[in-house]
Amino acid sequence: MTITIAYLGPPGSYSEAAALGYDPGAAHLPMNSMPAVVTAVETGAADAGMLPVENVLEGGVTTTLDLLIHETDLRIYGEMVVPIRHFLMGRAGTRLSDVKILYGHPQSLGQCRRFIERILPNVVTIASLSNSAAPAEALADERSAVAIGTQRAAELTGAAILAHDIQDRASNVTRFIALSRLDHPPTGDDKTSFCFGFGEEDRSGSLVGALQELAVANINMTKLESRPSKQVLGSYIFLVDINGHRTDPHVAAALERLRAKTGLMKIFGSYPRWKDIVGNA
Amino acid sequence: MTITIAYLGPPGSYSEAAALGYDPGAAHLPMNSMPAVVTAVETGAADAGMLPVENVLEGGVTTTLDLLIHETDLRIYGEMVVPIRHFLMGRAGTRLSDVKILYGHPQSLGQCRRFIERILPNVVTIASLSNSAAPAEALADERSAVAIGTQRAAELTGAAILAHDIQDRASNVTRFIALSRLDHPPTGDDKTSFCFGFGEEDRSGSLVGALQELAVANINMTKLESRPSKQVLGSYIFLVDINGHRTDPHVAAALERLRAKTGLMKIFGSYPRWKDIVGNA
Repeated sequence: MTITIAYLGPPGSYSEAAALGYDPGAAHLPMNSMPAVVTAVETGAADAGMLPVENVLEGGVTTTLDLLIHETDLRIYGEMVVPIRHFLMGRAGTRLSDVKILYGHPQSLGQCRRFIERILPNVVTIASLSNSAAPAEALADERSAVAIGTQRAAELTGAAILAHDIQDRASNVTRFIALSRLDHPPTGDDKTSFCFGFGEEDRSGSLVGALQELAVANINMTKLESRPSKQVLGSYIFLVDINGHRTDPHVAAALERLRAKTGLMKIFGSYPRWKDIVGNA
Repeated sequence: MTITIAYLGPPGSYSEAAALGYDPGAAHLPMNSMPAVVTAVETGAADAGMLPVENVLEGGVTTTLDLLIHETDLRIYGEMVVPIRHFLMGRAGTRLSDVKILYGHPQSLGQCRRFIERILPNVVTIASLSNSAAPAEALADERSAVAIGTQRAAELTGAAILAHDIQDRASNVTRFIALSRLDHPPTGDDKTSFCFGFGEEDRSGSLVGALQELAVANINMTKLESRPSKQVLGSYIFLVDINGHRTDPHVAAALERLRAKTGLMKIFGSYPRWKDIVGNA
């Protein structure tokens, strides 16, 4: 049976690359927002939804984190690490010294800051809503405009590639998660994602006490991020990834002890650890 | 002597509101990027620079955090908490049911998501580079366009206010920091900001051990955030705010013990705690 994977479109986005890499045989359904990806899975319009969760340079993708914390009970069923390669593109024959306008998604503009400062120091930057929209906007602009986008977006829009790998760091990768209505059974090499917080009683000691439960159980923490609780400045929800499946006895016991020390706790799911960090680019 | 405060312009931005509120008698110098604010202070073109550092709904302002961690040795000299009120604006007489296009800074669009979903469900959103650019773009668009912006941006551009306080939560505030070449002498009610990390040896136990130094010294932590180290996924730099001045003996001692347990540590500065959370809106 072919499954359907919803992703943040349009085609040409890094999310499409993640969806194609995660299951090339699936049907792929582009959605126009991250909440729409969640709703597609919740309602059965899709079997899984790919969302970016963390970039090695930019950090957590806050929309995804806030959806997990506040808005959905979907489970994380899998993860995928996708290399992010940014390309400069525009009309064929464009001379970089003539360029006046640069279109790019704000996160991509941030990831290429050094290239822009050095190679395009005088351009006006215009924020685009996606890496695939930016090249189309550049081609439609009658001024001398270029865009940051994916190789596939260049193919889809007919833009010519003017420079490749313009990101500040060569080792730029984004981690995606596959959301599903169920989490994944244990495979022996799994991760578990969850969040916890303390409500109003948030002090230095509370976080230390909670994390000690992982440290004493010798559970390796592969991610720790904080998000605002959205109530008052200085009150946080902590998002943690650990090695192990939540049904592993030592993991289950540590999570129970941690739950007793926190004001709120939500387990996002357990899923196989992604191994092929090179990805399918 | 009048001091000069650089801020992220153009006039009408929340950063301008912070700069005006922090020192109404200062000269205010709009810059066109956050790195430019830093450079203005580093080179003496300005005496202080206001940068947004944290929003209660959206979390840390990653550009500011990364500038502090990686790119400047300027000190935090002060802080200021500014209430964020988003207004919907456009041409006078605009009927909301006719609106086709909504301009907004991506963070403002995020903070007004519920309003947009309910009141403007079918509009196309266009990302703007600032809260003050968005209204000007809406007024220049020949289609039926509106924008999210500040009250002052409406005054500056001549846009009519169509709805007020459209943010998802009433208690939306942003904390700004004033950067300077020196930090502030002790006042008796101060905060200290710093970051630390562990390099490759990043495990659950390291963070617990480091934070324990604050907990045993009874030092209250008012912020803990993580940023990617930008090397590999899963390696983080932690940003912490604590109560107390770094020259207070118990704070100095705890920071020294913490430094001994971490791979890198950078103190951003000590400064008076901001008390008037209502701000000067």
